[in-house]
Amino acid sequence: MTKIDDLKKTAAKLRIHSLKMTTKAKSGHPTTCLSAAELIACLFFHEMKYNIKDPYDWGNDELVLSKGHAAPILWAAYAEAGIIPINSLMNLRKITSPLEGHPTPRMKWVKAATGSLGQGLSVGVGIASAQKLGKSPARTYVLLGDGECAEGSVWEAANSARFYELNNLCAIIDINRLGQSDPTMHQHDLKSYEKKFKAFGWDTFKIDGHTIEEILSAFDQAAKSDKPCVVLAKTIKGKGVSFLENKNGFHGKPLKEDDLAAALEEIGPMPDFDCKKLVKKPKPIKKPHGANRLNFKKNEYNKNTATRRAYGNALVELGRINDRVVALDGDVKNSTYAEDFFNSFPERSFQVFIAEQNMLGMGIGMAIKGYLPFMATFAAFLTRAHDQIRMAAYSFSNIKIMGSHVGVSIGADGPSQMGLEDLAMFRSIPGCAVLYPCDAYSAEACVEIIARYKGMAYLRTSRPATPVLYDEKEKFNLGGSKILKKSGQDAAAVIAAGVTVFEALKAYDILKKDKIFISVIDAYSVQPLDQETLIKTVNSSNRKAVVVEDHFESGGLGDAVAMALAGKVEIHHLAIKDLPRSGEPAELLDKYGISAEHIVKTVKSILK
Amino acid sequence: MTKIDDLKKTAAKLRIHSLKMTTKAKSGHPTTCLSAAELIACLFFHEMKYNIKDPYDWGNDELVLSKGHAAPILWAAYAEAGIIPINSLMNLRKITSPLEGHPTPRMKWVKAATGSLGQGLSVGVGIASAQKLGKSPARTYVLLGDGECAEGSVWEAANSARFYELNNLCAIIDINRLGQSDPTMHQHDLKSYEKKFKAFGWDTFKIDGHTIEEILSAFDQAAKSDKPCVVLAKTIKGKGVSFLENKNGFHGKPLKEDDLAAALEEIGPMPDFDCKKLVKKPKPIKKPHGANRLNFKKNEYNKNTATRRAYGNALVELGRINDRVVALDGDVKNSTYAEDFFNSFPERSFQVFIAEQNMLGMGIGMAIKGYLPFMATFAAFLTRAHDQIRMAAYSFSNIKIMGSHVGVSIGADGPSQMGLEDLAMFRSIPGCAVLYPCDAYSAEACVEIIARYKGMAYLRTSRPATPVLYDEKEKFNLGGSKILKKSGQDAAAVIAAGVTVFEALKAYDILKKDKIFISVIDAYSVQPLDQETLIKTVNSSNRKAVVVEDHFESGGLGDAVAMALAGKVEIHHLAIKDLPRSGEPAELLDKYGISAEHIVKTVKSILK
Repeated sequence: MTKIDDLKKTAAKLRIHSLKMTTKAKSGHPTTCLSAAELIACLFFHEMKYNIKDPYDWGNDELVLSKGHAAPILWAAYAEAGIIPINSLMNLRKITSPLEGHPTPRMKWVKAATGSLGQGLSVGVGIASAQKLGKSPARTYVLLGDGECAEGSVWEAANSARFYELNNLCAIIDINRLGQSDPTMHQHDLKSYEKKFKAFGWDTFKIDGHTIEEILSAFDQAAKSDKPCVVLAKTIKGKGVSFLENKNGFHGKPLKEDDLAAALEEIGPMPDFDCKKLVKKPKPIKKPHGANRLNFKKNEYNKNTATRRAYGNALVELGRINDRVVALDGDVKNSTYAEDFFNSFPERSFQVFIAEQNMLGMGIGMAIKGYLPFMATFAAFLTRAHDQIRMAAYSFSNIKIMGSHVGVSIGADGPSQMGLEDLAMFRSIPGCAVLYPCDAYSAEACVEIIARYKGMAYLRTSRPATPVLYDEKEKFNLGGSKILKKSGQDAAAVIAAGVTVFEALKAYDILKKDKIFISVIDAYSVQPLDQETLIKTVNSSNRKAVVVEDHFESGGLGDAVAMALAGKVEIHHLAIKDLPRSGEPAELLDKYGISAEHIVKTVKSILK
Repeated sequence: MTKIDDLKKTAAKLRIHSLKMTTKAKSGHPTTCLSAAELIACLFFHEMKYNIKDPYDWGNDELVLSKGHAAPILWAAYAEAGIIPINSLMNLRKITSPLEGHPTPRMKWVKAATGSLGQGLSVGVGIASAQKLGKSPARTYVLLGDGECAEGSVWEAANSARFYELNNLCAIIDINRLGQSDPTMHQHDLKSYEKKFKAFGWDTFKIDGHTIEEILSAFDQAAKSDKPCVVLAKTIKGKGVSFLENKNGFHGKPLKEDDLAAALEEIGPMPDFDCKKLVKKPKPIKKPHGANRLNFKKNEYNKNTATRRAYGNALVELGRINDRVVALDGDVKNSTYAEDFFNSFPERSFQVFIAEQNMLGMGIGMAIKGYLPFMATFAAFLTRAHDQIRMAAYSFSNIKIMGSHVGVSIGADGPSQMGLEDLAMFRSIPGCAVLYPCDAYSAEACVEIIARYKGMAYLRTSRPATPVLYDEKEKFNLGGSKILKKSGQDAAAVIAAGVTVFEALKAYDILKKDKIFISVIDAYSVQPLDQETLIKTVNSSNRKAVVVEDHFESGGLGDAVAMALAGKVEIHHLAIKDLPRSGEPAELLDKYGISAEHIVKTVKSILK
């Protein structure tokens, strides 16, 4: 019975921390922490094994806090485990602290940013898949809220977990009945959740989420199952504080000082108990080794070839010399040519079926465990995973995304299949590399560039076969461009990428007959853009630029060039140019350079 | 038995058309049409009632072809029903024909564009909800493929259908076992589908999808159910043509002429039978009337107020004078202030829970039936529905979207909750109005602007309370802006919107003390942008512009202004500036202005 008592004390400590932290921060979600206190206590101080000295220990069990608004209790658990100082908890949500309002990897034990609900289970599926691939005995846990189970992405993940037989994956749903503005759809009807997860092929365990014995028993049984498991935990939002328990309207509300005192009175004094002794360390285990080279052997091309075809070729060659490369497909691998990788390396290939959100989430999870995921589908369908892509940026995720069949150049399949907004989507993400090659040689070079790039990278490929423009000796760089035509007497510089490079070259030939010359630039690196070359070339080309792209008007190459060339009518653009973080609004406006002070500075710099 | 024979003949006719059309077009998906032939025959020529003279007849049953790649057989059914000429079928996928590769409302019986899989069921949920709201006895049918059931959006829709007890909704899944590149997850295991839908609260009917009697019986039973129903139809992809049946690798492949002849030989001659006599007309029924005014009474403000707060106030006033207004929420209505509408008009309020994709799909469906849906959530979470938003544009959908809590000005909740990419997302959509008011008066005015606008409109609102800048007499227009400061001796023009307007005004005051003046513009209409005023103001402000926005660097107001002001280093931007359609790649490149010929024309215009 000592263990049970210890865990009860631990839960009490976590409750006290969560309430104090949110009152101090004057914002946050204490009631959702209170419902999860026993679950978190049992996870961190009984069930999971982890090396508090090394968040990257290959033997560590992993936790994804899908219900990211419960961040305070996560920070409290790390503090009680001895990973961060207890007194750092009072810095919650301060601009100087890694303990943000919702978890991000600025706190290094957090591997995936959460807070956009319904995404954690896919990340867990990716982590668990990577653990299996790397022959790790470790397990993956995902703590979800009940409200987020309305997100379809949860069911995409549930499908994949069953398909890949991830018996090392355990989801826990904190069924506290109340959402932000309304009771959830199923409230405390645990059977509805049970039926759904069972129908999706999972083992389910219905328990009272405040009874330690039931939690531990569920975890024990889950560990023995040959299926992915979900613990359906009936809990009370605000548990432990009578005036908060099971009441609507307290979702994002910290307690005022007076109420905090009353709440702490109810919970009782902080237990004099060191939780650290409950932490279990994993057995030492070696990280999976394997080749990790990136300079793959390029193919030769001597006839018109689609850039998507070259992508497929390159991926296979990269796979040969790099064991970390994994490929994920949304059932279009015969169109993206990822199928060659699937045929060559079936054990590193993941069919996610038509579920792009889950494809992204799984990729994020695999990158967390050190794999190098390449995900590909039609560019149009990547919009389905925009929220996951956005969150991947906040996870500082090293993932590679290929979107094929871009633009009207796909032809007769019609607009639903055309990726005409993908550049706007990926350009908006700070630090995301965006490459758009026009021929097979540059496409293969771009695959190597994105593989080498540390961070999110997007490769845009086309459906039609395009002429071979370059050769195997040509060098391509992130932030580069190619001047294809230049005469010194050009009427304009035509800036193109992908299929429009060939339209520009055709235009060159037509104009030449009229003794009109243009310079032509292949702006294959859309982000970062080769600003220097563009400015120089346009300035020496009658100071006129013509941008031509197979993408909607806004947000693509045109906007990028317009901003890059905004030279004469000067444009100074103040905007969020980096990934932001928690903080007070005013300090954030200032930190990210859009406050009055920054405007003043900019105007003064203009006058100099 | 005559009816059964007639429907068999009808199915044969639909098969023959589908094969011929796709061979003629040299592209398309014939095998997925063959698997659905009996289902479509029974739907169009027995089950559904519709007035072939009027696609908008309020008594019409509605069909959403969620498996949009089966478009040829949809066109064939409309032709056999007498809605379009039979000979028009041979124009499939031509740039001059409304019979596109995937359905769009360019063919007026199509109400929602499909082809991005997994979206149709949500649209059906919206249509069925609207039918109930408008007291129509009509029913809604959605034909899905089996592969698309991997999309989470299907399960979001399944949840809502049960929650709103839509017994007028009948889904049919054409379970033909084969996806594009692989067999589907469940192949012909109908029980897996049955378990899932039953767990989500639906009635299910497992049938052989090629046996007319079974199809009709399932429809009969579904009509009597008090739940949403799904017909799980086991079918054979390529059914009727021995060398196509149940074979992987024929997903998007039309037959060559020789193979077509062999296929038609197997199916037999075109039955000499007029399907039109099988079409059932609905009983006349009046459209639901109701107030449809838009000039709602504005509220007065005399203290700092958040624009989201003003949105909530305005929506209630609009709801009072317009019975078509409906509101949808993703469980954040206490934050978006949609809750006031929910409290005032519960029968026109729809809680979709945390399922943004389904919220958008439902809104699209309700707009199809003439309602004016206002959907609101945190701007960040709208990225979850990017694909639905994109498809809504192709559906020419008259929907209104509000995104709150934009930018770093939300403060301590952290980056996952900040909408920093929403302008890039909505600006990329041609024809989407994008408004970003800074105070309560302009916010209410913007609600009226978007209500009046015919098409998709996005309203961006902020979390913090902002000063009252305008009054009730101030006029706001789509494409307008406000010059807030101007001296004739300005060092620069500061262009701002939303919270940064107040930063700009603060900067004005600070600079004034140094005898430096700036002009300040509130660019509340981000799309369309007030280009004329901006150019004029910047030109008279030392020809310097400073754009300041609470949004990521790319794709937002800065890019918009850069392009609008690209005056001196001229930028001519060729891009897809309209919603594209099916056609040959070359003709599409030309039609949408990014071909060599257009480049030539642009360069020549520069020289003039």
